[in-house]
Amino acid sequence: MAEELSLLGMWASPFSCRVKIALKLKGVVQYKYIEEDLFNKSPLLLKYNPINEKVPVLVHHGNPLLESLVILEYIDETWQGYPIFPKEPYERAVARFWAMFIDDKLLPAIRRACWGEEKGREKAVEEVTELLQLLEKELKEKEKRFFGGETIGLVDIVADVLSLWLRSFEEGSGVELMTREKFPKLSKWSHEFVSTSAVKENLPPKDELTVFLKNLFGS
Amino acid sequence: MAEELSLLGMWASPFSCRVKIALKLKGVVQYKYIEEDLFNKSPLLLKYNPINEKVPVLVHHGNPLLESLVILEYIDETWQGYPIFPKEPYERAVARFWAMFIDDKLLPAIRRACWGEEKGREKAVEEVTELLQLLEKELKEKEKRFFGGETIGLVDIVADVLSLWLRSFEEGSGVELMTREKFPKLSKWSHEFVSTSAVKENLPPKDELTVFLKNLFGS
Repeated sequence: MAEELSLLGMWASPFSCRVKIALKLKGVVQYKYIEEDLFNKSPLLLKYNPINEKVPVLVHHGNPLLESLVILEYIDETWQGYPIFPKEPYERAVARFWAMFIDDKLLPAIRRACWGEEKGREKAVEEVTELLQLLEKELKEKEKRFFGGETIGLVDIVADVLSLWLRSFEEGSGVELMTREKFPKLSKWSHEFVSTSAVKENLPPKDELTVFLKNLFGS
Repeated sequence: MAEELSLLGMWASPFSCRVKIALKLKGVVQYKYIEEDLFNKSPLLLKYNPINEKVPVLVHHGNPLLESLVILEYIDETWQGYPIFPKEPYERAVARFWAMFIDDKLLPAIRRACWGEEKGREKAVEEVTELLQLLEKELKEKEKRFFGGETIGLVDIVADVLSLWLRSFEEGSGVELMTREKFPKLSKWSHEFVSTSAVKENLPPKDELTVFLKNLFGS
């Protein structure tokens, strides 16, 4: 294989999915995908990511890359063509901010709202609503189809958790978080995002995902 | 002012300090520094960072930049001269990984070890030890003075929390975390880091810092 490129991933991981989407957008399709069993981690995963033993790991010419946000930066810097990050430094900074916002604030709040301790759930639902409102506002102000503009970019890829995964979280837990009425722009974004070909072909099957997530977090 | 540049910061914040160090390394010294009172936040801070009302905020030509890691990327992309990030994509990815590691794993563990709930402290001390060992190993393998090589770079700047702040945490809480015996490379790094002129002139006075942190976290 010309590129000597492997991706250690897991089918239900939105973080792995981000890397698959980014590679597809760049037209990088010649790589070895290795499915990891997180309950029985492979020696390869432990070798390449001994620090936190997590997927995704992208291995390029023998060099392991860890953390999906770091991998997305690397992919954009390494392969030309489709731009994942905006070109201008300020726009890049804004995109990086939202990516961190989704991972550091929104995702933990969604988990708490759906499957956190009973007594904290109501407050977590409010928190998720407030955080989603900020993203709804961002989309509204942009007046574009995607966070990236007319095509998907960093923030859209990172926000994959708000498409299929959020729906599975909602279905599995019975907690409603992102209704079409409250979040028309985000709901439209979610529909358009999952309809994008680079995304669609890399998403896991929804029903299996719902069952998997419910078993993982709900018990 | 030619650059129209302001920094909203707080004297005891290691995150604000990172931005000051980075600007100094770039030779950007003509900016307005605005000290924030975190117990009485200014309208300017609320205007520029309504989302989480935190410092640092760098305002460049009226555009607010949030989150210290994002600001460091912006500074390196905007001002030429001293390179804060490595040049090669893989080295950049490794630096970004360690920066996230420090903020997402190490710092929360340090807080728990020093001023977390009593029953979890011992475990947190063990966790900090394990995490620091990874950084010690990284420095040892590099055989360089700094994480950035012969000069300070991204990881050094982000690791500012391991210099003065960690010492203040230790003194204020009475918990020992990074002894010279266990961590000779990190201890040497810390000494060299705080002796670097761009760092030294931007550090807060240690005794005031210890008192401030103890009041903030210890009560």
